[in-house]
Amino acid sequence: MRDVPDPPLRPWSPPEYEVDADGKVVGARPGEPNHWGRWGDNDQLGTANLFSAERVAAAARLVRRGKRFALGLPIGGIATPGHYRGAPLHLYNFAAGDGVLAGGLGGEAYQVSDDYLVMALQASTQLDGFGHVGAEHTLYNGYWAGLVTSSLGAQRLGIHHLANGLAGRGVLLDVARHAGVGHLEPGYAIGPSELAGTAAAQRVEIAPGDVLLVRTGHLGWWLGLDREGKAAVGADEPGMSTRAIPWLADHDVAMLALDTTALEVRPPEPDAPFLTFHVAALRDLGLLLGELFELDELATDCANDGVYEGFFVAAPMPVVGGSGSPLNPLVFK
Amino acid sequence: MRDVPDPPLRPWSPPEYEVDADGKVVGARPGEPNHWGRWGDNDQLGTANLFSAERVAAAARLVRRGKRFALGLPIGGIATPGHYRGAPLHLYNFAAGDGVLAGGLGGEAYQVSDDYLVMALQASTQLDGFGHVGAEHTLYNGYWAGLVTSSLGAQRLGIHHLANGLAGRGVLLDVARHAGVGHLEPGYAIGPSELAGTAAAQRVEIAPGDVLLVRTGHLGWWLGLDREGKAAVGADEPGMSTRAIPWLADHDVAMLALDTTALEVRPPEPDAPFLTFHVAALRDLGLLLGELFELDELATDCANDGVYEGFFVAAPMPVVGGSGSPLNPLVFK
Amino acid sequence: MRDVPDPPLRPWSPPEYEVDADGKVVGARPGEPNHWGRWGDNDQLGTANLFSAERVAAAARLVRRGKRFALGLPIGGIATPGHYRGAPLHLYNFAAGDGVLAGGLGGEAYQVSDDYLVMALQASTQLDGFGHVGAEHTLYNGYWAGLVTSSLGAQRLGIHHLANGLAGRGVLLDVARHAGVGHLEPGYAIGPSELAGTAAAQRVEIAPGDVLLVRTGHLGWWLGLDREGKAAVGADEPGMSTRAIPWLADHDVAMLALDTTALEVRPPEPDAPFLTFHVAALRDLGLLLGELFELDELATDCANDGVYEGFFVAAPMPVVGGSGSPLNPLVFK
Amino acid sequence: MRDVPDPPLRPWSPPEYEVDADGKVVGARPGEPNHWGRWGDNDQLGTANLFSAERVAAAARLVRRGKRFALGLPIGGIATPGHYRGAPLHLYNFAAGDGVLAGGLGGEAYQVSDDYLVMALQASTQLDGFGHVGAEHTLYNGYWAGLVTSSLGAQRLGIHHLANGLAGRGVLLDVARHAGVGHLEPGYAIGPSELAGTAAAQRVEIAPGDVLLVRTGHLGWWLGLDREGKAAVGADEPGMSTRAIPWLADHDVAMLALDTTALEVRPPEPDAPFLTFHVAALRDLGLLLGELFELDELATDCANDGVYEGFFVAAPMPVVGGSGSPLNPLVFK
Repeated sequence: MRDVPDPPLRPWSPPEYEVDADGKVVGARPGEPNHWGRWGDNDQLGTANLFSAERVAAAARLVRRGKRFALGLPIGGIATPGHYRGAPLHLYNFAAGDGVLAGGLGGEAYQVSDDYLVMALQASTQLDGFGHVGAEHTLYNGYWAGLVTSSLGAQRLGIHHLANGLAGRGVLLDVARHAGVGHLEPGYAIGPSELAGTAAAQRVEIAPGDVLLVRTGHLGWWLGLDREGKAAVGADEPGMSTRAIPWLADHDVAMLALDTTALEVRPPEPDAPFLTFHVAALRDLGLLLGELFELDELATDCANDGVYEGFFVAAPMPVVGGSGSPLNPLVFK
Repeated sequence: MRDVPDPPLRPWSPPEYEVDADGKVVGARPGEPNHWGRWGDNDQLGTANLFSAERVAAAARLVRRGKRFALGLPIGGIATPGHYRGAPLHLYNFAAGDGVLAGGLGGEAYQVSDDYLVMALQASTQLDGFGHVGAEHTLYNGYWAGLVTSSLGAQRLGIHHLANGLAGRGVLLDVARHAGVGHLEPGYAIGPSELAGTAAAQRVEIAPGDVLLVRTGHLGWWLGLDREGKAAVGADEPGMSTRAIPWLADHDVAMLALDTTALEVRPPEPDAPFLTFHVAALRDLGLLLGELFELDELATDCANDGVYEGFFVAAPMPVVGGSGSPLNPLVFK
Repeated sequence: MRDVPDPPLRPWSPPEYEVDADGKVVGARPGEPNHWGRWGDNDQLGTANLFSAERVAAAARLVRRGKRFALGLPIGGIATPGHYRGAPLHLYNFAAGDGVLAGGLGGEAYQVSDDYLVMALQASTQLDGFGHVGAEHTLYNGYWAGLVTSSLGAQRLGIHHLANGLAGRGVLLDVARHAGVGHLEPGYAIGPSELAGTAAAQRVEIAPGDVLLVRTGHLGWWLGLDREGKAAVGADEPGMSTRAIPWLADHDVAMLALDTTALEVRPPEPDAPFLTFHVAALRDLGLLLGELFELDELATDCANDGVYEGFFVAAPMPVVGGSGSPLNPLVFK
Repeated sequence: MRDVPDPPLRPWSPPEYEVDADGKVVGARPGEPNHWGRWGDNDQLGTANLFSAERVAAAARLVRRGKRFALGLPIGGIATPGHYRGAPLHLYNFAAGDGVLAGGLGGEAYQVSDDYLVMALQASTQLDGFGHVGAEHTLYNGYWAGLVTSSLGAQRLGIHHLANGLAGRGVLLDVARHAGVGHLEPGYAIGPSELAGTAAAQRVEIAPGDVLLVRTGHLGWWLGLDREGKAAVGADEPGMSTRAIPWLADHDVAMLALDTTALEVRPPEPDAPFLTFHVAALRDLGLLLGELFELDELATDCANDGVYEGFFVAAPMPVVGGSGSPLNPLVFK
């Protein structure tokens, strides 16, 4: 058989910390700003705590026309950008057509279909769980990264904790439109001034508990490229700068979602290697992050009526111990 | 190798109909009542057409307290009832804990998790697509069952057509509570009198476009059984009687969901073999059907405050050409 | 949601034939040459019938040095050429390392690993089953193509019928070396003269029941290309010409395998659209076909000692009703 | 959503050892007897080293009649015993029958099938890899258990190292027949006296490098039970006693395979908790282990002709970094 070289190894020394009976790394300290302990030492919801009943009720009153926008990408049928995760695999276990051939289930009388999906939970429009990215062996609220294993899944911070639904005021920040472009260029970093500037131009004020839908235009543009065009772009994208973190914390934002694959700007900024934003958001702030949101149709509507807010509703799949979930978020205006 | 007997075969004769360029079986006729053609000859949405903007806006106004209820079963961790589909398989591709061992992705600096799900789209709380069940080689609106194949999926009536979101007034009909029992017995058939009687007792009126959440109590009861108890129950369940079909049509219900596996009563009623209800609902009426909805927590709340309505929101996964979708429906009160 | 256009449809008329209780298309006729009926009307083994006990015993006597060559490509870790099938997905359900983190199965005492594979059965080195390709709605021996459905799998001609093992005299025909090149160019068609000429030059005679391992050098060359090189090659490959079919039939070859993805030359010859060879071989002759065989190491050994024959042994996975199987064939010299 | 209780946690302290650049736990010591270092400090093949060219050539000469026996269980179609792993899932991506409906790939001219398998690598007849079970955080030859992670697979001791083929003299030890029973009872422990006694009765001598196929009769018996019968048996099986370990080492056996799920006797012997045998065999001896081998047909043949030896050939799937592999072993007599 063809030789398969063994991967190189490095020596390994055990870490120097202990993990307590709550699953916390003893002595671990988050970055600043952070929300560790804000909602209790055993909190696993992070900024989902901001979706209070009062805010949900208020956000529901934003539904005026009754128009709804689904932000989820089709699964299958189209390519999704820059993904090491591979395309979802959609397979029929039995198909109604088989019944026409007398080779179906359902006998003579019925034709029945039933299908499977094999899918990376983050391979399309999705929500990050708090087990998705950590640093210094810690996750949100000081939980140990070692709690997430293939054998037992995420023993804490599983995505199912968020499955009670994400609902609140959704605000579209159309940064691309504000910048006067169809889409922001790959590498374009979105910091506090872009967020604040766009909000001001849109005459919308960001309030605690808001869901920010930040539009770069990248996804729609990318989907329209041909194969060579996509190859030329590679994994580069516009996205969030770590400079936006304090602003997001100051405004007590509940969720941040972009129309890009990785949410963070790529290539990353010189002083912030890739995943720095994820760590600051997921681990330190417990901030809900959404990726690959389709925002173009919503953006057109908002530009037309000048209303950039609506009732945002999303329900992650209750995958017990999962590190993320596909999402088909809805915005009602 | 151990002998594997070939399955028995029967002779096969080709069907006698033609299929036109729209994918319709020429000359096919639905059962009565039906909605074929009601929303156009090429309609693929069925009763989802009833979720008009006006109704959505009105339903959103039912959000008073801002309390939300997620109706989706956990995926993994618990058994689901009576399923030939097998349990969802949740596998980590990489786990944050691997980083503690220097055997992770993310290098020294980060610990990263990423997981997969292998799942029958209807193996947990779910929405039936219109490709799921047909009869006489036809599906909803006269589309040919042969349009659903493993090669091409559902070329018409794919679940992605419903992914723009199901939203409207949700009404809980707590048939079990109305009957004064913790759960209806397997085999108990719910007909028009049970629906109407429960609605009357709850002082709630069913209006066009409503989502009916019919509680049998079966799911919660079943989940509490031990392995022997579950084996004794088998696939039997309370559920819908075909006698309810005209009532559902008369009231122009948009969606019907139960806390059972199959929605139909099992064992089936003597005059209606299993799947008769599915055919009358899915194929003839184009009626949205939901299964394995968790209704107990919502039911307790409704019993407490006497309010049996709320804003129902559910967003199917946009699986292109799928025959069903997992669902984590939300009800806001 | 982003609009997903419905696929175009054509009208459909039912076929004009009947299918009998044996699963045969009444009145179907194979191409020429063919083996329909040669081993009985209900034969599902095709040329695997040629692996008689006598031939197996004779072939085993070809083991002289005791050296073995495994012809299977690694699964994972390397790309495989030109495949619509997607790479196999290898996922750990639990990993021994998890036990180091107390997050494993096996408790304190043991560290246990267990892994899954999600794989197209023909995504790597593989054997075609007779359900893989048909024409005029027929498969080998006149079985109806309609017997293969997602619901019931291959009700006849499933790959499990071949799982009793393929064993016989294996003969390497190193066409590339005979042509004096490292690898044959994409589009190079191998006909009877190339086969006969190579055999003559190697002083090896092809006998009934032989397994022909035809080396183009393509796979090894392709694997050494960089990403751009691979993209430039695309799906083009050297491979079999349909002109070789009568020669293969005349010599009563039991199996034919190449070091290419599709076995047939691509682009196809002008008079033979892609899959013509597959139909003539699989459907008409019931000839066993192997693809993506790694032949380079074996070829080097044969060139060194001048012995181009050995004991070929391969055991397909007994996937009941499968249309193909991964294979890790061995040649003993 | 239904409450999903978090799993209980324990405090965790880092291990006290270091791991060197070869992936070895510094200072680790195997049990006795063991083969650590016997074939070099970096050996990953274990007793597969015993399949020398000389032994392979000699074993091939055992092929007299040319009769072959495939020992792999069918995949799909039948239940496999007592498995937490779930049944393999076999799904068609496209099916030839779809072409009859004009809903296939292959256009008008061809009907094409292509299928997937989702399978635990050890869910049927299989070979254990050396990453499968460890103890004291070590695997065979002192490799660290932490080298096996979901992210990177088995960085050492992956099953692909064994994919060059397992071939040698296979000896059936029909312990059940020697005991005069159709099958050994669950809980029956096979020690050195059963092995030696059976060999003596069969007039066969065990030689270095042999593959021992130890028949309990359990698998065939179990497959014939009805559902209740299987449930009553549960996971109990006859199987190996740890007392056999020194005997296996003394005889320099290359591989041991049984017709049971777990190879070890279950319930385990009082002094040897479950997996003790696996650790002594896999970790300490680097002994190849096979499970769920179908031995009944072979056993009948051996009883008939009195010849209990043959040429054993098996080719694991070259899954890079895998912890096990499905196997369809062949024995030629």
